[in-house]
Amino acid sequence: MAPSAPTPAYRRLSVEERRAQLLTAALGLFAHRAPEEVSLDDVAEAAGVSRPLVYRYFPGGKQQLYEAALRSAAEDLRHCFDEPRTGPRLPRLARALDRYLAFVDQHDAGFSALLQGGSVVETSRTSAIVDGVRRAAAEHILSHLEVDSPGPRLRMTVRMWITAVEAASLIWLDEGKQPPAEELRDWLVDQFVAVLGVTAARDPQTAAVLAELSSPRHAG
Amino acid sequence: MAPSAPTPAYRRLSVEERRAQLLTAALGLFAHRAPEEVSLDDVAEAAGVSRPLVYRYFPGGKQQLYEAALRSAAEDLRHCFDEPRTGPRLPRLARALDRYLAFVDQHDAGFSALLQGGSVVETSRTSAIVDGVRRAAAEHILSHLEVDSPGPRLRMTVRMWITAVEAASLIWLDEGKQPPAEELRDWLVDQFVAVLGVTAARDPQTAAVLAELSSPRHAG
Repeated sequence: MAPSAPTPAYRRLSVEERRAQLLTAALGLFAHRAPEEVSLDDVAEAAGVSRPLVYRYFPGGKQQLYEAALRSAAEDLRHCFDEPRTGPRLPRLARALDRYLAFVDQHDAGFSALLQGGSVVETSRTSAIVDGVRRAAAEHILSHLEVDSPGPRLRMTVRMWITAVEAASLIWLDEGKQPPAEELRDWLVDQFVAVLGVTAARDPQTAAVLAELSSPRHAG
Repeated sequence: MAPSAPTPAYRRLSVEERRAQLLTAALGLFAHRAPEEVSLDDVAEAAGVSRPLVYRYFPGGKQQLYEAALRSAAEDLRHCFDEPRTGPRLPRLARALDRYLAFVDQHDAGFSALLQGGSVVETSRTSAIVDGVRRAAAEHILSHLEVDSPGPRLRMTVRMWITAVEAASLIWLDEGKQPPAEELRDWLVDQFVAVLGVTAARDPQTAAVLAELSSPRHAG
């Protein structure tokens, strides 16, 4: 199949394929625009189908398409955290951050709109999806730190750092993706070590985690 | 006037007084419950007036009352940042944090509901109010640091720390206000110094700010 050939006719795609095609079109639009700026006509046009067809697959209209696109993006984002549990730990974090920042780069306007809140498509469901990604990120980090039962101070430190990373991503997008992603990534890794250090001064568990992280085996 | 006497009759209050009374009742309810759990009947009952009277003052109903209450709470929160620009700087930050944490303590459920997002009363207007408070907090900190034109790295560091403080407040509420507010405050101040230290390694302006902050004059 020539890659540039447009999808020829409605009946050629299965229900699942059609759904995936509409979702891909929606994702492409929602990634780079605020949800307010995406209409169902835009999605239909991007997918090369009619508006009624979009409604047949997504009877809930834009809200349903947005939530489906968000779920799909959240799934992609979770994959950014997949990192083999071997080798020095700080470089593992750096690699996950590289993938995360690439994701932010590719979903810029949609990412900002989602996290800045107050959007018409924001509901308790969309908030729950975003929160699920945050929780997954925290669980990943704690599991890489190999802490059996992380105490409240360590957990709080990890969650605060994740929020700070989110804030950094939004500011980074606001400032035309400056500083370069590699510099931001190193800055964020260094911040992680620094805030662990602050918590280590008041929490033996965090002190042990930090000592292990700073050992030649893990500093990378 | 005996403080325990209920407000006696409708006509005794001026329009402004009545509005303020309804707003106070709404604030008290929205502070401790999610907006979904506050009805106009609750506000009417808390103010000791009828539901139609609430509508006469707030024809937009709950949404309008919520936004008015939020504006009033945001104003209170901004006052937490008021701190004379004299004396050592870190204790100034500690005092502002004490007031901020007292505010969080007093507006617990409402604060959580507001910042967790996805609420039915959340709009681009409510997000703008919250963002205005964040911006004010950043401006206050930068002005106390006496930096004329803060560069992007210093600004980003301050904004990331503010977001981390917000995250800490939400987790703190989630965890039954543990650790005690004074301990959390010291932890947050130490984190501020630590993240400035990370940025100082890659930004001369932040290095100068940090050197000044750590001097005996300002460390407190």
